Amino acid sequence: MKKEIPKKENFSEWYTTLVLKSGLADYAPVKGCMVIKPYGFSIWEKIQKIFDEKIKKIGVENAYFPLLIPEKFLKKEKEHLQGFSPELILATIGGGKELKEKLVLRPTSETIIYQMYSKWIKSWRDLPLRINQWCNVLRWELRPRLFLRTLEFLWQEGHCAYASHEEEREETLKILKTYVDFYREVLAIDGFWGKKSESEKFPGALETYTFEMLMPDGKALQGCTSHDLGQNFSQPFQIKFLDKKGKEKFVWQNSWGLTTRSIGALVMVHGDDDGLVLPPKIAPIQIVIVPVFTKNVEDKILEEKAKEIKEILKKFSVKIDNRKEYSVGWKFNEWELKGVPLRIEIGEKEIKEKKVTLARRDNKEKISLPFSSLAHETEKILDSIQKNLFAKSSKFVKENTREVSDFTEFKDIMKKKKGFIRAFWCERRSCEEEIKKETKATTRCLPLETVEEKGKCVFCKKPAKRKWLFAQAY
Amino acid sequence: MKKEIPKKENFSEWYTTLVLKSGLADYAPVKGCMVIKPYGFSIWEKIQKIFDEKIKKIGVENAYFPLLIPEKFLKKEKEHLQGFSPELILATIGGGKELKEKLVLRPTSETIIYQMYSKWIKSWRDLPLRINQWCNVLRWELRPRLFLRTLEFLWQEGHCAYASHEEEREETLKILKTYVDFYREVLAIDGFWGKKSESEKFPGALETYTFEMLMPDGKALQGCTSHDLGQNFSQPFQIKFLDKKGKEKFVWQNSWGLTTRSIGALVMVHGDDDGLVLPPKIAPIQIVIVPVFTKNVEDKILEEKAKEIKEILKKFSVKIDNRKEYSVGWKFNEWELKGVPLRIEIGEKEIKEKKVTLARRDNKEKISLPFSSLAHETEKILDSIQKNLFAKSSKFVKENTREVSDFTEFKDIMKKKKGFIRAFWCERRSCEEEIKKETKATTRCLPLETVEEKGKCVFCKKPAKRKWLFAQAY
Repeated sequence: MKKEIPKKENFSEWYTTLVLKSGLADYAPVKGCMVIKPYGFSIWEKIQKIFDEKIKKIGVENAYFPLLIPEKFLKKEKEHLQGFSPELILATIGGGKELKEKLVLRPTSETIIYQMYSKWIKSWRDLPLRINQWCNVLRWELRPRLFLRTLEFLWQEGHCAYASHEEEREETLKILKTYVDFYREVLAIDGFWGKKSESEKFPGALETYTFEMLMPDGKALQGCTSHDLGQNFSQPFQIKFLDKKGKEKFVWQNSWGLTTRSIGALVMVHGDDDGLVLPPKIAPIQIVIVPVFTKNVEDKILEEKAKEIKEILKKFSVKIDNRKEYSVGWKFNEWELKGVPLRIEIGEKEIKEKKVTLARRDNKEKISLPFSSLAHETEKILDSIQKNLFAKSSKFVKENTREVSDFTEFKDIMKKKKGFIRAFWCERRSCEEEIKKETKATTRCLPLETVEEKGKCVFCKKPAKRKWLFAQAY
Repeated sequence: MKKEIPKKENFSEWYTTLVLKSGLADYAPVKGCMVIKPYGFSIWEKIQKIFDEKIKKIGVENAYFPLLIPEKFLKKEKEHLQGFSPELILATIGGGKELKEKLVLRPTSETIIYQMYSKWIKSWRDLPLRINQWCNVLRWELRPRLFLRTLEFLWQEGHCAYASHEEEREETLKILKTYVDFYREVLAIDGFWGKKSESEKFPGALETYTFEMLMPDGKALQGCTSHDLGQNFSQPFQIKFLDKKGKEKFVWQNSWGLTTRSIGALVMVHGDDDGLVLPPKIAPIQIVIVPVFTKNVEDKILEEKAKEIKEILKKFSVKIDNRKEYSVGWKFNEWELKGVPLRIEIGEKEIKEKKVTLARRDNKEKISLPFSSLAHETEKILDSIQKNLFAKSSKFVKENTREVSDFTEFKDIMKKKKGFIRAFWCERRSCEEEIKKETKATTRCLPLETVEEKGKCVFCKKPAKRKWLFAQAY
């Protein structure tokens, strides 16, 4: 297989070509929509499995709510409506007739879910109520990019209701931590977690928390969100419960989501000129065994040996590539393109010397191992790949996060190197808007570990207490 | 918990009340839509897990195709368009503007998937291509019923392409067999598998295969479909491949689906006056342990014992119900309503005598077991429940399948007892329509094991070769 992908320096073109050529996704006939192909979907299935287990342990249960939402529901929470109005897709015809009421294709499900919660929640005994759904959502999109911004995407959305604000906030942050751990430990991507500014938060939330990652082109990508909704929805939707003393109260709520966009981050952060580089913990195929067929050894002997190795490594996800219609070089290229973390070559030399040759995808290192130590060493190597990828990501974030106090410098960085900037901001919306206008950078978050200091706003020089994280964003 | 469900004799009311009260589902605000609540969804998750494993073993991979289909795609296959036209829901507004082309919310995905296949399939090396998706689909529905007919439902749809018709047909039937085994072995529901008549087949298919079950009210429910599409779609969609000799050919295709409707069947077939009765193999909770708190034994001792039992039975899905805010009777009623196959009671007497009391949900039998034989006996009991439920379903189907040669008798049966009728039919559409008009019964299928005989059509008395299965259908 010839890879025919551009160099990573040509980032945007590299990204799109890689997503298409590696078999992750394809453009769909409707502009802005995409098809997630089997290889891409198998990554999503792994994400689902890992995250689903994590939230079930917290007591979250899955359910399914309808795609179609009466338009009037979105009008119940003003900010929510304003935020989503420009992005709505509406169904207006059903069964050959004009519908009496236009139906919104869910852009997110707060309103339809909370309508049901107002019916289901009656007493403190019904709380906390923790429900999640894995589903498709639709938001009109004029500048689509595969995985990053599409008209339809897949996600999970969790929606929980509690008796107290304290309990609700605690879990909002617990979920955020779950996302962050998932990104760091499984996807091997580092970044900052923190709170969104007023203008960047979810329409209708009290507070929005996020994990912000840095892409190789210096732009930030939002990895997830966890919203403290307070009582902003329970009041208009009348979600009330009788507490232990028989007093009627509104519930406290949070909602939180992770999307197929995470696959886009995975591609961008780890990929290289030869294709995808998948961290072992998320790779659908962790190891590929390629027998190097030759005239001097019977094919059968190599195939048997490959099977034997697969058996030894059965705790991993292993694929044997026995195809005869493709050359060895073609196959090597294909599995590199697909980002399989470890390739095992087995040929004439290996049979003779009772060893195998391992090729790491992350650093291209070749390792020769005797059969006898294969099981033990493979685990260590996969572990080392996982750690190496995270270390690289961490280093990149660190090297591209700059403390800035001067706005000329701020502008200069955003013009050339980009990356994250940590700077004092007075927290006035007008400054945030001006900064955006002049640099295209927005506040990404107020990192959770931020401590109050005395400083001056990077833009207006008025007093400021906290350093915010800025970046141009996807 | 008071169950407050009607007797099963009042079948329709019983069904709806049971679905709502047992926490499987609820009505959604948009007419015809439903919410699948956590308990109902956990059954769907089990169905997904079991079936997904089965199809992955055959080599099927999951993917995701867009919800929105350009209207013109449906026009490519005439029968397909005619069949689905009355049921379509259309999006016409996006981002605040009228769309240039109306977009269909997928009622099924043949057209959008095959548009992609025409791009992806080039050579015999690309075949067979076996892709499945788990997703939501939408069909306009005027007479909705929870799980059975809803405007939106969840399903899997498999779409495979092959180089030869022979291979394609073989797998069409293999998949059908997978569905049938799943219904019989997991959901414990018996029925007939066979081929649909011309008028009942999927719009655009050469042949449709089905599994037809019998509900307690004597009406048939279609459990799944597997379609031999032949080249009916590959020709209009131009899905061509170069065979090994370099000759261009159209692919052969099948498609097949199983929906959340299967949960409706599960409720109807096994449920009784006290609630759901779930076969152990599909029950999200297989065993519930209820400590019977009393003044004479410390709560802690019972709770510890419950934990111990749960540990002994850890290979099963076990829930301990320690809630103090509900009485024992209330809890028994609740778990009966939810159809948990086996209840274990542990109270004063049990502690004293070193035994437990088991209550079977299917036949209400109570069994006393010493602790020592618990692990071993529980497995046998669950197995016996599974078998008993299937045997009951089988018996019901057998007792309500009647051979009929006289149309007066046919009409009489369809008026009173209903059930399946096996009768000779001349295979003319006019007779099928007349039979439907006079009896509301339609051809359900030509059972696969049917042998040709000499006979007369039950309606027109003209020569007929094969006995078809008739019933009124959901």
